[in-house]
Amino acid sequence: MKIRVYYEDTDLGGIVYHANYLKYCERARSELFFEKGASPVIDGGHFVVLHIDATFKQAAKLGELLDVSTEVLEVRGASMTLRQRVRRGGALLFDMTIKLAYVKEGRVGRLSEAARAQMLDLLG
Amino acid sequence: MKIRVYYEDTDLGGIVYHANYLKYCERARSELFFEKGASPVIDGGHFVVLHIDATFKQAAKLGELLDVSTEVLEVRGASMTLRQRVRRGGALLFDMTIKLAYVKEGRVGRLSEAARAQMLDLLG
Amino acid sequence: MKIRVYYEDTDLGGIVYHANYLKYCERARSELFFEKGASPVIDGGHFVVLHIDATFKQAAKLGELLDVSTEVLEVRGASMTLRQRVRRGGALLFDMTIKLAYVKEGRVGRLSEAARAQMLDLLG
Amino acid sequence: MKIRVYYEDTDLGGIVYHANYLKYCERARSELFFEKGASPVIDGGHFVVLHIDATFKQAAKLGELLDVSTEVLEVRGASMTLRQRVRRGGALLFDMTIKLAYVKEGRVGRLSEAARAQMLDLLG
Repeated sequence: MKIRVYYEDTDLGGIVYHANYLKYCERARSELFFEKGASPVIDGGHFVVLHIDATFKQAAKLGELLDVSTEVLEVRGASMTLRQRVRRGGALLFDMTIKLAYVKEGRVGRLSEAARAQMLDLLG
Repeated sequence: MKIRVYYEDTDLGGIVYHANYLKYCERARSELFFEKGASPVIDGGHFVVLHIDATFKQAAKLGELLDVSTEVLEVRGASMTLRQRVRRGGALLFDMTIKLAYVKEGRVGRLSEAARAQMLDLLG
Repeated sequence: MKIRVYYEDTDLGGIVYHANYLKYCERARSELFFEKGASPVIDGGHFVVLHIDATFKQAAKLGELLDVSTEVLEVRGASMTLRQRVRRGGALLFDMTIKLAYVKEGRVGRLSEAARAQMLDLLG
Repeated sequence: MKIRVYYEDTDLGGIVYHANYLKYCERARSELFFEKGASPVIDGGHFVVLHIDATFKQAAKLGELLDVSTEVLEVRGASMTLRQRVRRGGALLFDMTIKLAYVKEGRVGRLSEAARAQMLDLLG
């Protein structure tokens, strides 16, 4: 997934504000669903973040076109762990391992088998 | 209401990104409810923006402490018009007239008399 | 320019937070430069917003693909006025007239003739 | 430092969008400087994030008043590691270890002794 850096993404340091790399990765996760005509809102539940381990290697700047990749590391009944990386051309800017849980009505829940199968298919 | 300018609010031009003044004004509207222990979510409905007329006079910078004032211009059955101004000390930075409607389940609705009385009381 | 609505753009009302339409329009203005390999930062100066008049007609939701159009209404020596509209398919969601000035080192300035010609060329 | 949750902070899941906890923590870091009349911009340089390890324990909601604490774990010549926690009353919502470096003109640099002493004084 390609993401362009706009003014809103930068701060007065002249580079992308650090929290925005998390937004870019969330866009990439959601886009996996959208590009197939599906929704990340499954049976009225959402994926919420449990844990993040992220390394910031280089800074992105206004106008740059970034690439976000998503790789599945582990899928369990009620959570999954992904690795997402943001690159600019060949350069690695941001490298994150993120653990997510499926939450419905404020509680961690299990996806139905059908929803789980569909989701794994999307994550490819 | 006092609002501090943080890194997230600035862009690479070194000043507050223009759309953030709208956020500051929304915070001030909501804070009118919160500071009285009330919620801007009334009977499950929200206020949505219908129209904005805003003049940007001076730019705010990192670390500055801004003041947002809110004045009621008109209240009708299903909408209200406010004037909100952002100042830094004596200097006027941002001057906005905003028209809002109460929306519930996707439709413009009327507030109950009790909710309307409470809201007008909060808005002073 | 096409813009997808992500989680970050929505609020608990289930629709796009109002200030984000201004961000979408700024992305579209900047993209006019980026898509031609140019930068909206001209001779170290930036365009800043002087005035906005905006009407919010319908709300956008998660996953929708929006279209932002930009039309030049007037160009003067130190400012320009644009009309920008956000649509979802045939439906008009947001309609804004925005006046911008070119600012360099904190002061409103004039673009060089070359920069002005280039900019008008980009804006079509 | 106290932080109120506003509409802009929430998403359609009805809770604070995950990346915003990083913003709250950055506000708390900057506020350590602002409240003493100092600036986090030191000799024209900024602190940039190198690494984050963050656990999301509970979700915050609209109108809640959160508390952000900052504790110094380690300070080296060109970097420092902090632990920041976001709480709502007695409940721990977010727990992050963050490593920062001082960067000037795009390069990791060393703070002057005077700046370093001042910063350690602010961080308590």
